[in-house]
Amino acid sequence: MERLDEAAAYSLPGPGVTRLYASEEHRRLLPLLSSWMRCAGLEPELDAVGNLVGRCPRALAGEPALILGSHQDSVIEGGKYDGMLGVAMPLLALEALREEGREPNCAVEVVAFGDEEGVRFPFTLVGSRALAGTLDPKVLGGEDEEGVTLREALARLGADTSRLAEVTRDPERVLGYVEVHIEQGPVLENEGLALGVVTALTGIERHRVRVSGKADHAGTTPMEDRRDALVGASAMVLEADSLLRRLGSLVGVIGQLSVRPGAVNVIPSEVEFTLELRSPEPEKRLAGRREILAALADIAKERGLEMTTGLNYEAEGVACAEWLIQALEQACRQEGQPTRRLFSGAGHDGLAMHDLTDIGMLFLRCRDGLSHHPDEAITADDAEAGTRVIMRLLDNMAGTP
Amino acid sequence: MERLDEAAAYSLPGPGVTRLYASEEHRRLLPLLSSWMRCAGLEPELDAVGNLVGRCPRALAGEPALILGSHQDSVIEGGKYDGMLGVAMPLLALEALREEGREPNCAVEVVAFGDEEGVRFPFTLVGSRALAGTLDPKVLGGEDEEGVTLREALARLGADTSRLAEVTRDPERVLGYVEVHIEQGPVLENEGLALGVVTALTGIERHRVRVSGKADHAGTTPMEDRRDALVGASAMVLEADSLLRRLGSLVGVIGQLSVRPGAVNVIPSEVEFTLELRSPEPEKRLAGRREILAALADIAKERGLEMTTGLNYEAEGVACAEWLIQALEQACRQEGQPTRRLFSGAGHDGLAMHDLTDIGMLFLRCRDGLSHHPDEAITADDAEAGTRVIMRLLDNMAGTP
Repeated sequence: MERLDEAAAYSLPGPGVTRLYASEEHRRLLPLLSSWMRCAGLEPELDAVGNLVGRCPRALAGEPALILGSHQDSVIEGGKYDGMLGVAMPLLALEALREEGREPNCAVEVVAFGDEEGVRFPFTLVGSRALAGTLDPKVLGGEDEEGVTLREALARLGADTSRLAEVTRDPERVLGYVEVHIEQGPVLENEGLALGVVTALTGIERHRVRVSGKADHAGTTPMEDRRDALVGASAMVLEADSLLRRLGSLVGVIGQLSVRPGAVNVIPSEVEFTLELRSPEPEKRLAGRREILAALADIAKERGLEMTTGLNYEAEGVACAEWLIQALEQACRQEGQPTRRLFSGAGHDGLAMHDLTDIGMLFLRCRDGLSHHPDEAITADDAEAGTRVIMRLLDNMAGTP
Repeated sequence: MERLDEAAAYSLPGPGVTRLYASEEHRRLLPLLSSWMRCAGLEPELDAVGNLVGRCPRALAGEPALILGSHQDSVIEGGKYDGMLGVAMPLLALEALREEGREPNCAVEVVAFGDEEGVRFPFTLVGSRALAGTLDPKVLGGEDEEGVTLREALARLGADTSRLAEVTRDPERVLGYVEVHIEQGPVLENEGLALGVVTALTGIERHRVRVSGKADHAGTTPMEDRRDALVGASAMVLEADSLLRRLGSLVGVIGQLSVRPGAVNVIPSEVEFTLELRSPEPEKRLAGRREILAALADIAKERGLEMTTGLNYEAEGVACAEWLIQALEQACRQEGQPTRRLFSGAGHDGLAMHDLTDIGMLFLRCRDGLSHHPDEAITADDAEAGTRVIMRLLDNMAGTP
């Protein structure tokens, strides 16, 4: 907890933590992270895209390594734990093992990824994509709002962008990727659990739905003669919510909705809204999409409204590797922690690392499910439980199964 | 129909009719209306607020008169019939009576009110309020969007605003006020009727409702843990609609609705919407308001949402006089027209004239219930039926009962 408080000080002024990718705050943080890595027995190195990578001697010698880590960057006015927890905890676990005269059963690297939040530049997961070899080098020319290119920002950070190709890892030299992260949701807190083992990172799709009725004078048109687009859209919002509660393995939200003409005394003629669906299981997401859109079309038909829909965005989810799930569960059991599988409704560096290697994630309970906020909080007890589980994992880990 | 086409030519260029109060188009129209009045046996006079008033000899001699009329002004890109129908039709009825050698059984005035739509200046019903004596003389200093005061505009029209006080009528010299107007709704068309007799002009109230839940990450918050303000507001929209259909004698609409934070991936934390209720019967409107707001509060409570409401606007409705309703019904029956009572969901000059005298209104079927639109339409047959009914009314009218 002290280390996370210390790291949180490397922030722009203002509430919470604001430490963007390749910023001055990022640069000033690097020596602190390097010292943590050395205490953990790792040799730190800043790579071409601003990831700080700590390698143990066996990893430096070329042995296939388990990569642990998370991201150093925050959102604007974010909290102390989102990202940095997954950097600090494995380093502390390694240090604690050393202090007990033990060592991991495999080669280990810990990575503090430069960018996961994607706040400063118009792209995200730069660090993990570079490791996976899926980063388009053109992003180096991308600019922040002040016209600074990523290449310039990385040069100021001290990173040598000419060595970008060297960042890409050989999958044969990687055992897997394990990330610890706050849950960013209320499931663990509601169930009184400190830790959860992630089964998958969610897939996401976003639709735009337009409902058209007829604008009429709201004083002179009898209720039964109306084709009110907002009444229809309201029935759709309720139906989507009810289906999402019933279907399971799927969450969704209607987050934007606008009404035309939007006059106090005119019957709404048109409503446009967004529908976002998330599921770790692509087939459940597709089945859910079909069922929900069909139900909305039925409502439009019953109410004499026109409806059009368009899919604006779709990103596949990725599954965690069963052997890493089981390894994390075994470590939990050894520490007397109940094992609870859950999926991640948010994206993480694992989305990119999945292209390189097997991934696993451990979630830590956070207060009120809150994240991306200065009030983000965890307890010292939970942090200790998590650290002990990672120590067990490292202790057990002899290689891929 | 020819006269209404002719009058419609006095318009700004563009679709439909645009003839605002005290405008150049209004000024150019006055000689045409004056000639119609003279054909009807009336003596035209432009009063201090731009109403063109035609009086028969008995009215000029001081006998209590039945006032008929409607407004000369239109909305921007309005139709040919809203307003002008109620000026042209009584004049044609008087002319037709004269041609048959008959005359009204009472003194008659026909008024072409200058302003009913309230489009140009920030107030409305100037002409009818002036007759009723309820016009605040300060409105003469009110400005249009170009900074022209009503006083200046009326001077250009040829009206002598210094004689404002003379416009106010002595209630003892008025028998009642009868207006013919297109329905602006679909009731008559749906029932295959040409004409309807209005029982009351609606009262209106407008509320602002704010529903507050909790903004959460739409990917990581389970469906059952959400307090989604938009889902709650949608249930409220449906419940209000369903109650309005059930309650009767009341119409209402939720015409504006906005969602915060309004991000595609964030659970809505706050929704604000308007609720407008209209009823010709104040007690039904108040009872409906109580029932609807209580139902919305129940929904908020069930869903763990906060709700606040505020009444922004309230205007009492006015009832038509039973003796004028019956006089119009009798005239309809004499012309073989079915009698259908209905209320007006829109406001009219009668709202102001009610402060002076008893009011009655005859509605004429309009195509698709459409008004305030270039496609506003009536049929020649309906116009003839209406004219014959007004002829009968004038024939029958011997004074107040």
